[in-house]
Amino acid sequence: MSHDLSLQGVFTPITTPFDEKEQIAHGKLCENLELWNRTELAGYVVLGSNGEWVFLDESERMDVLRTAREAIPPDKLMIAGTASESTAKTIELTERAAALGADAAIVVNPSYYKSQMTLPVLADFYTGVAERAAVPILIYNLPPATGMDLSADLLVQLSHHPNIVGVKDTGGNVTKMADVVRRADPSFHVMAGSANFLYPSLAFGASGGVLALANIAPRESVALRRLFLEGKLDEGKALHLRMLPINLAITSRFGIGGLKAALDLLGYYGGPPRRPLRPLGQEKRRELEDILRRGGLLA
Amino acid sequence: MSHDLSLQGVFTPITTPFDEKEQIAHGKLCENLELWNRTELAGYVVLGSNGEWVFLDESERMDVLRTAREAIPPDKLMIAGTASESTAKTIELTERAAALGADAAIVVNPSYYKSQMTLPVLADFYTGVAERAAVPILIYNLPPATGMDLSADLLVQLSHHPNIVGVKDTGGNVTKMADVVRRADPSFHVMAGSANFLYPSLAFGASGGVLALANIAPRESVALRRLFLEGKLDEGKALHLRMLPINLAITSRFGIGGLKAALDLLGYYGGPPRRPLRPLGQEKRRELEDILRRGGLLA
Amino acid sequence: MSHDLSLQGVFTPITTPFDEKEQIAHGKLCENLELWNRTELAGYVVLGSNGEWVFLDESERMDVLRTAREAIPPDKLMIAGTASESTAKTIELTERAAALGADAAIVVNPSYYKSQMTLPVLADFYTGVAERAAVPILIYNLPPATGMDLSADLLVQLSHHPNIVGVKDTGGNVTKMADVVRRADPSFHVMAGSANFLYPSLAFGASGGVLALANIAPRESVALRRLFLEGKLDEGKALHLRMLPINLAITSRFGIGGLKAALDLLGYYGGPPRRPLRPLGQEKRRELEDILRRGGLLA
Amino acid sequence: MSHDLSLQGVFTPITTPFDEKEQIAHGKLCENLELWNRTELAGYVVLGSNGEWVFLDESERMDVLRTAREAIPPDKLMIAGTASESTAKTIELTERAAALGADAAIVVNPSYYKSQMTLPVLADFYTGVAERAAVPILIYNLPPATGMDLSADLLVQLSHHPNIVGVKDTGGNVTKMADVVRRADPSFHVMAGSANFLYPSLAFGASGGVLALANIAPRESVALRRLFLEGKLDEGKALHLRMLPINLAITSRFGIGGLKAALDLLGYYGGPPRRPLRPLGQEKRRELEDILRRGGLLA
Repeated sequence: MSHDLSLQGVFTPITTPFDEKEQIAHGKLCENLELWNRTELAGYVVLGSNGEWVFLDESERMDVLRTAREAIPPDKLMIAGTASESTAKTIELTERAAALGADAAIVVNPSYYKSQMTLPVLADFYTGVAERAAVPILIYNLPPATGMDLSADLLVQLSHHPNIVGVKDTGGNVTKMADVVRRADPSFHVMAGSANFLYPSLAFGASGGVLALANIAPRESVALRRLFLEGKLDEGKALHLRMLPINLAITSRFGIGGLKAALDLLGYYGGPPRRPLRPLGQEKRRELEDILRRGGLLA
Repeated sequence: MSHDLSLQGVFTPITTPFDEKEQIAHGKLCENLELWNRTELAGYVVLGSNGEWVFLDESERMDVLRTAREAIPPDKLMIAGTASESTAKTIELTERAAALGADAAIVVNPSYYKSQMTLPVLADFYTGVAERAAVPILIYNLPPATGMDLSADLLVQLSHHPNIVGVKDTGGNVTKMADVVRRADPSFHVMAGSANFLYPSLAFGASGGVLALANIAPRESVALRRLFLEGKLDEGKALHLRMLPINLAITSRFGIGGLKAALDLLGYYGGPPRRPLRPLGQEKRRELEDILRRGGLLA
Repeated sequence: MSHDLSLQGVFTPITTPFDEKEQIAHGKLCENLELWNRTELAGYVVLGSNGEWVFLDESERMDVLRTAREAIPPDKLMIAGTASESTAKTIELTERAAALGADAAIVVNPSYYKSQMTLPVLADFYTGVAERAAVPILIYNLPPATGMDLSADLLVQLSHHPNIVGVKDTGGNVTKMADVVRRADPSFHVMAGSANFLYPSLAFGASGGVLALANIAPRESVALRRLFLEGKLDEGKALHLRMLPINLAITSRFGIGGLKAALDLLGYYGGPPRRPLRPLGQEKRRELEDILRRGGLLA
Repeated sequence: MSHDLSLQGVFTPITTPFDEKEQIAHGKLCENLELWNRTELAGYVVLGSNGEWVFLDESERMDVLRTAREAIPPDKLMIAGTASESTAKTIELTERAAALGADAAIVVNPSYYKSQMTLPVLADFYTGVAERAAVPILIYNLPPATGMDLSADLLVQLSHHPNIVGVKDTGGNVTKMADVVRRADPSFHVMAGSANFLYPSLAFGASGGVLALANIAPRESVALRRLFLEGKLDEGKALHLRMLPINLAITSRFGIGGLKAALDLLGYYGGPPRRPLRPLGQEKRRELEDILRRGGLLA
């Protein structure tokens, strides 16, 4: 079996909407997807970090995937987050996600026992999952959460597996990302994990991005890639620099609470995150509004 | 409500035994506990890091607690690991653990969204859990897993909560631990999270320890503390230095696979860890045997 | 006074040649410069990290600057490394470098007392130096050496000083670099400190680079920038990926000993570094040869 | 040659006094030493980190050693800081220090080229220095300045050199320190580099300490060790906890400026540090006074 999944393009790692009681708001999820579906996004990551998957139990995770798949048209990919610390559980969740119509699964590496997550252990983990999975696997390198940075050597080795399709890299180490592009199997996709560095990453051959920013600015996110590919470098640079403070605000600075507040401000449903995460306070909400306004997303 | 739980003494963070198919071996769990029960251990942490809790699903976690409670006599404390990234889930698991007879719950901090886990967010998390819990809460600071180090300021603030009983600190920062001893509520227990630094920590007033070492050397672990309290400093130092290479082997060097191999070598049931963790290979097993022999645990 | 120094282009942070007794080989320095002078390099950093300045005493530093200035034609800039932990000494060395004909001075931040090097302290340091300097100051951010990463806020603040001309940033954090481009005074130059990330950095407006690679591949280094500016993106990407393993070899992998060995292999004078640094051993030298050959620098 | 230098006891890493123009105040240096000489301090480290050696040029360094030696009686050791990034320069400075009467030299490891400072390179560095030195060498492990932590393996290897006498370890990793005590040559001294962890370090066999605190509280510093050795553990613990906030204030919190302000407050000469370091501001000076008062050093 060899995957023929193309990850060229920009994907949104969607939020999971909660109501005021922190319960999943399935209707709001559909409404958001309807808005995003009108754009040229290549697809969605459902139950990624912006989807607060770590706060959902297994049945909730499956419910979200079911709802999302119904609202995502066939021409847009649904990549399901199916990670778990345990190999067996990751295999099981990936199986269930595939049965619910996921086109691929994205799997962050186990990281609780960091010192024991050596290259061979992680290679076995991903190979074990990929061999049992009915859908292609996208590796998820997420140093801000895992406290680990998957090495170029590991990624290059895994790139040759027929059912491993690429990496979403959130670390921002463009030296390593380019090294992976250079050494990996040609079918392997290196995806920028943030709008902080998607645009410069295109210069060395990143296939696209999975961008928190695409939740609130899907058209601009898609344009970042298109402008580069069309060689409109001045325009591309200007858009990159215009989006940068917005992206910093909804990620490192204000976190999920900030991203959801921005959704609310821009006509989507944001709502509260689950505790211990918190909604954005009034003062920060005003700061965020300013940032969105100066960035041209808000009138 | 104010806790009257004394954490003076040495506790074993027990392993969760699995059979060859990586299923929970409840009988083996009981057999191990019967051996440990004959010692002067003050109690057990069930479902801590050495218990591979991150690989167990919720029902398995409850099953392990049930089995353990039956095998643990009333004069020894059972501290149940009930952590989850979500506040609500942590509260729920703590409730269920209390219903199963846990004397206290140990809760590692949420760490997936590290940059958002500020002091007030973590203070709210622990306070929220403690207020709803039917048993006292022991904070679990575990930098090797979480990639975060809970600050003295946070611990001191939480020490005044009537239902927060102490901290198991695995970071090994003795400056910080002493600062917490100095500034915390007098009822708050600072517990060394490793035999690497229990012995020197007693010098500034640590109450005791929760030691992986106590799985395989419960009597020596208890003796470390007793010798210091009795002022037998030469003997205590010698024992500390004798145990150190063993403890390094079963923790940072060989991990859970090493700890379980040591259990097998010393008359307990070790068995395999769950994947992605691995059993110790032959060569390392021989190295470990040497270390145990030189440390006087193996004839 | 306001600088009119343009740092558009590619600069070589040249090595300091030593003879077999580790004494400065002034003749070899001139010979190397004669070779480099034939290229389109914009200029040189003399006594940067690749120049092993930390191993030279003050009079040696001045001797190297004197020799270099004589060998560097007026149409190429000479940027002199004048750093010291002490503010007063940095001012003094900058004065002397200017008197010897340096066009600018590059100053790595003091970092021995890291915890005390707060934003205001570093701002005062650079402002104090810039105000007394007869030539413009280029900030040198060098996390691999200093263990610190100068913040965007500091760089943006300093960018408005009329005598601070830019930053050579070796950290590789393209998010931060773009943020500085966006927020800094328009006259401020953000220079990539390594060929690892010069090429992608051009996408967001880096002015150029100060590249160890330019010691051994000056034409390719200049071409990286030219290809991007001309919009020859496929060619540029290919060159970037071709140079990457070479650059990794002569920097993070084999260090100064590797860079000097490569110089020797490519018709320049390399020679030994000063101790404690070491010349490359035979085996690694062969590896390096292979890498240079595969990268097309060696026939 | 085999050293017979005993480093049992407590040493003061003395400050270098400057006058208002930041010039060395030799008279004040003597006056301070006269006060310290009346205590049971085992000796002094001159030109350590608290001595701001990185701000002094070579001739200033020699001048300070000359003055200090004249003011230090023969029964107290003078350990001279002779570090430099270069092996040859370190050898030269050590020679000159020995000629000026130093009893030993303390040498922080080169750290500018961190990635190249591998175990064999550092072993060669220290061996090379020790073999040429007329006085014994004390290794100086200083992670807060160097951004590196010398490994137990390196220290154990070097411990067998007849002219390497011990390590001053400022990292605070008590696990590693005990591992070095256990594995090193019996003649090798492990010295706590801070009052933050001297007291607990005595439990596993540290020989003594080199303590910033001993500048302002020499008698208490000496007592910390004596109380432990006499088995007065309650008294020792109380003194450790009483000194801890003071030590945190004059090191990590307020830095050299804080230490010098404390000297001024306590009847010694402090004076200003050299720039870029700064004297303590008024508000922090009041905070510091409070801390000294609550710690019983100030009436």
